[in-house]
Amino acid sequence: MGNMNIKKLAQELNLSPATVSRALRDNYQISPETKTKVLAMAKKLNYEPNPFASNLRNQKSKTIAVIIPEVANNFFSQAINGIEEIARMRDYHVLIYQTHEKSETEIAFTQRLISGRVDGILISISSETNDNEHLKEIIKNIPVVFFDRVYEDIDAVKITTDDYESTYNATCHLIACGCKKIGYLLALNNISTGKKRFDGYKNALKDNEIPYNSDLILTDSNNDEENYEHIKQLLHTQKPDGIISSVEEMALPCYYACKELDIRIPDDIKIISFSNLKTAPLLNPSLTTITQPAFEIGKEAASIMFKILDKKYFEPNQTHILKSTLIKRESTSF
Amino acid sequence: MGNMNIKKLAQELNLSPATVSRALRDNYQISPETKTKVLAMAKKLNYEPNPFASNLRNQKSKTIAVIIPEVANNFFSQAINGIEEIARMRDYHVLIYQTHEKSETEIAFTQRLISGRVDGILISISSETNDNEHLKEIIKNIPVVFFDRVYEDIDAVKITTDDYESTYNATCHLIACGCKKIGYLLALNNISTGKKRFDGYKNALKDNEIPYNSDLILTDSNNDEENYEHIKQLLHTQKPDGIISSVEEMALPCYYACKELDIRIPDDIKIISFSNLKTAPLLNPSLTTITQPAFEIGKEAASIMFKILDKKYFEPNQTHILKSTLIKRESTSF
Repeated sequence: MGNMNIKKLAQELNLSPATVSRALRDNYQISPETKTKVLAMAKKLNYEPNPFASNLRNQKSKTIAVIIPEVANNFFSQAINGIEEIARMRDYHVLIYQTHEKSETEIAFTQRLISGRVDGILISISSETNDNEHLKEIIKNIPVVFFDRVYEDIDAVKITTDDYESTYNATCHLIACGCKKIGYLLALNNISTGKKRFDGYKNALKDNEIPYNSDLILTDSNNDEENYEHIKQLLHTQKPDGIISSVEEMALPCYYACKELDIRIPDDIKIISFSNLKTAPLLNPSLTTITQPAFEIGKEAASIMFKILDKKYFEPNQTHILKSTLIKRESTSF
Repeated sequence: MGNMNIKKLAQELNLSPATVSRALRDNYQISPETKTKVLAMAKKLNYEPNPFASNLRNQKSKTIAVIIPEVANNFFSQAINGIEEIARMRDYHVLIYQTHEKSETEIAFTQRLISGRVDGILISISSETNDNEHLKEIIKNIPVVFFDRVYEDIDAVKITTDDYESTYNATCHLIACGCKKIGYLLALNNISTGKKRFDGYKNALKDNEIPYNSDLILTDSNNDEENYEHIKQLLHTQKPDGIISSVEEMALPCYYACKELDIRIPDDIKIISFSNLKTAPLLNPSLTTITQPAFEIGKEAASIMFKILDKKYFEPNQTHILKSTLIKRESTSF
């Protein structure tokens, strides 16, 4: 029995090698019953784990990784600070990786992290991502918590905001302000976050008996100059009386385009944007925002990660929803 | 001679073990002559490096670390993007660490990086730092490039901007606009970056025969609420007709304080700030800024790092200075 290995042990137990391996590593995804069964059989059959590999695995890196699209984004930089506040209390280091919305980069990062470099991963997925096999693989080996931008179809803890309600309420606010022709700047449309925001807008129109008009929808091209030209074109040709921007990046180009086209905010057009911009109250005019609780989302995601690492978290597939706030300012006549 | 080790080899060569070790690793700090001498002696004495250790050392991590005070700072987030642009071309990963201006955190990070986790470090030092022994130690083992916030007394490549000239010119601009009582919001005063900015202000006053008045100087307390109260107090009691903010973080509190105290910008007071804020042109009023070439600084720092890693850089103690731009806007009556 000297060369007993995980594969043979798994055969004896009638379990998959992956399950046995996870049970031996005390992984949170394996039930206490299975763990007891596996350990008993391992003992009975004198299974000795590879001591070098085991040592590597037991050695805590005291580091968590944060994978995000961009640090030059107020939402993410504030979320990181929330994560770090919790990590600091636990004497953990935080490594930050930017994907710049590239699926390829996200895959490369996550693959490097499997090797025990970090104890856990907090991730907000790239907008380009549409295949999540790499993440399904990684969550077998290391705890992962998703925040803000999540996959619906992955079994993991998710922290999001009320994306649907946020745009629904914002659209209703514009309608209450008298807007009848509301443009929508659509981003993140490959992922659930973006889809929910868009649904909120469409359903608010429907509930207020305003027909949906696809000419008023502008899809983010991931290119600043192109976006700016498209926004100018939308404002010039369609003459919307309201705009909802589903991401902060498209709000400022709107301001510049209005300046250039001599369109007055809020007299000619009212603007609302998802934004964690600190200068929103100081803009000319001040900007009405849907503000996500970025710092709190980071704190919540990190707190749950540490509960998982402490083996004190028992709802591995739960979604936690934090509420955003609609802050009414001059750009919608407040 | 089987148990020949670096210590004995060093004795034979009359060199320090550290120098011998670095020569064997082909470190850029060791002269070609010394390397040749060490390699010849190692061969003569049949010195065999520990193959495991050697393997670890030769194994490139293809990763560089960036250590900065804050990602929620437009200068640093843009600099990171410059660094990543270069790293991407070389197929390198970038790890980002935030120190939150804490010397202790900076020391902890750098010590973890000695072990070969990364091939090089780009660092902008924390404002709290006044002891740099940890960095002197690290640069013996791994290439380090300093950017923006640097130590004058460390032998390493440094990329900075023209801090002295920037505030000198900004102060002259305020004087040309008619300001006679110019307040200065002083930050980073423990490090050379902050000292040079402050010197630029003081010398511009002197050259324009305006007496220096310490009552007009407000020192950053590293606490947002305290800073805000201090700024209000300065504006209320001293009634300056101009303000230079040596960091972006203190400019927006100035705007809020002026609003609260009913002080009109630029009629009653003119404001200039170091800033890479994208919204500077959209503020009410738009803000005159000293804008550092953040993206270019990041690119330059990373380019030099790769030259060092390629052993194609031969001026290990050079300082590269990039120029900032004074962008005149409404807050100084432009």
